[in-house]
Amino acid sequence: MAGTVYLVPNLLGVAAPDTALPARTLDVARRLRHWRVETPKSARAFLKTLALATPIASLDVVALPASPTAADGAALLAPALAGDDVGVLSDAGCPGVADPGAALVGAAHAAGLRVVPLVGPSAILLALMASGMNGQRFAFHGYLPVKPEARAAALRALEQDSRREQRAHLFIETPYRNVALLGALAATLAPATQVCVAADLTLETETIERRSARGWRSADAARFDRRPAVFVLQV
Amino acid sequence: MAGTVYLVPNLLGVAAPDTALPARTLDVARRLRHWRVETPKSARAFLKTLALATPIASLDVVALPASPTAADGAALLAPALAGDDVGVLSDAGCPGVADPGAALVGAAHAAGLRVVPLVGPSAILLALMASGMNGQRFAFHGYLPVKPEARAAALRALEQDSRREQRAHLFIETPYRNVALLGALAATLAPATQVCVAADLTLETETIERRSARGWRSADAARFDRRPAVFVLQV
Repeated sequence: MAGTVYLVPNLLGVAAPDTALPARTLDVARRLRHWRVETPKSARAFLKTLALATPIASLDVVALPASPTAADGAALLAPALAGDDVGVLSDAGCPGVADPGAALVGAAHAAGLRVVPLVGPSAILLALMASGMNGQRFAFHGYLPVKPEARAAALRALEQDSRREQRAHLFIETPYRNVALLGALAATLAPATQVCVAADLTLETETIERRSARGWRSADAARFDRRPAVFVLQV
Repeated sequence: MAGTVYLVPNLLGVAAPDTALPARTLDVARRLRHWRVETPKSARAFLKTLALATPIASLDVVALPASPTAADGAALLAPALAGDDVGVLSDAGCPGVADPGAALVGAAHAAGLRVVPLVGPSAILLALMASGMNGQRFAFHGYLPVKPEARAAALRALEQDSRREQRAHLFIETPYRNVALLGALAATLAPATQVCVAADLTLETETIERRSARGWRSADAARFDRRPAVFVLQV
């Protein structure tokens, strides 16, 4: 019988595993021997926090290719096809959500393997919950353009869509650009448009703030510099 | 000092709490005395699974109004303003995500209260992970129109957007209409468009299947009848 492909969420930073991972996720992760991961070094650091009975060096830990070919997919899934379970792990949060892993999951479905997503932290989902914005209709866009004019145009398009559809829009930024993005949000959006920033989610330094674009004009954005953050806006 | 508003995910069905909730979520939920919930009866059933030290009848459990006014918000948050923590809970999954709670969270931000989202299961997020579709760019639409022509038009619009933007689109349906929706997906979408159905997530009966619209034409859709499910499509 074929093995199962388990999608294992990783912690969002330095935290005790049981702050963000259910016992079932920890139990499955502790018994998996085959891992397909975003970065082997980060994966081993995560596995070390689980206090495994097996030495980590004895595990089969392989980096996911950026764009896996069909041959890559078959090779990476070989243990599952032979009857062993395989874990997919990214460097933080849920594999396949704003992170590598989705292509391998697609290959697993094509091969007829059972895919089981385990529960754990997703910065995107936690930011949406914490924003109090529209969880009935929302969209995640990854990174917005970096160049100021293209970024302003993208923000105006999201704002226009939100005004028309009451949709909440989520996006992320490279942490060293958070302050610049907050400046752009404050300068570009209509004064009353709501903006929520959620940084260091699930960590001791977690900071979640929601105010209007007008409010962000006078807020101290520097506090969000170089902290992993998710941004949410809604008119 | 003001209390904190904790957003507490609920289980997605009958399951042991530690299958889907981290120890931290369980610890916080066990010590909260004030609850603002979608349905008090379901909330008490959830609290019962936590084996609280306090009798459940002694807790302050209040139903969330469908559209809370500012006065409702102030009344519901009164314990937090007075220094006690408050929990927000829906009948399944994450409060505020395809579920009530968001308006109260907005009121909490407006009142300057700290909002803390706890980790737990979200059928939407788990379905996205398990679909292997685009987790870098996705949108959730809640329910599609019920009438066949409007539904077909909505599906074609999502498919067109997905073709242009490589976006994954997620939606839900009232469980007794799952079979009709799968029929509409098979009949309306281009043959190669991918459709994933994720039912009974995190439960023992969890079923996740991804195939092309063409593949769904001959698949046995009746198995998904009356099971809570999330649908994902991508061209």
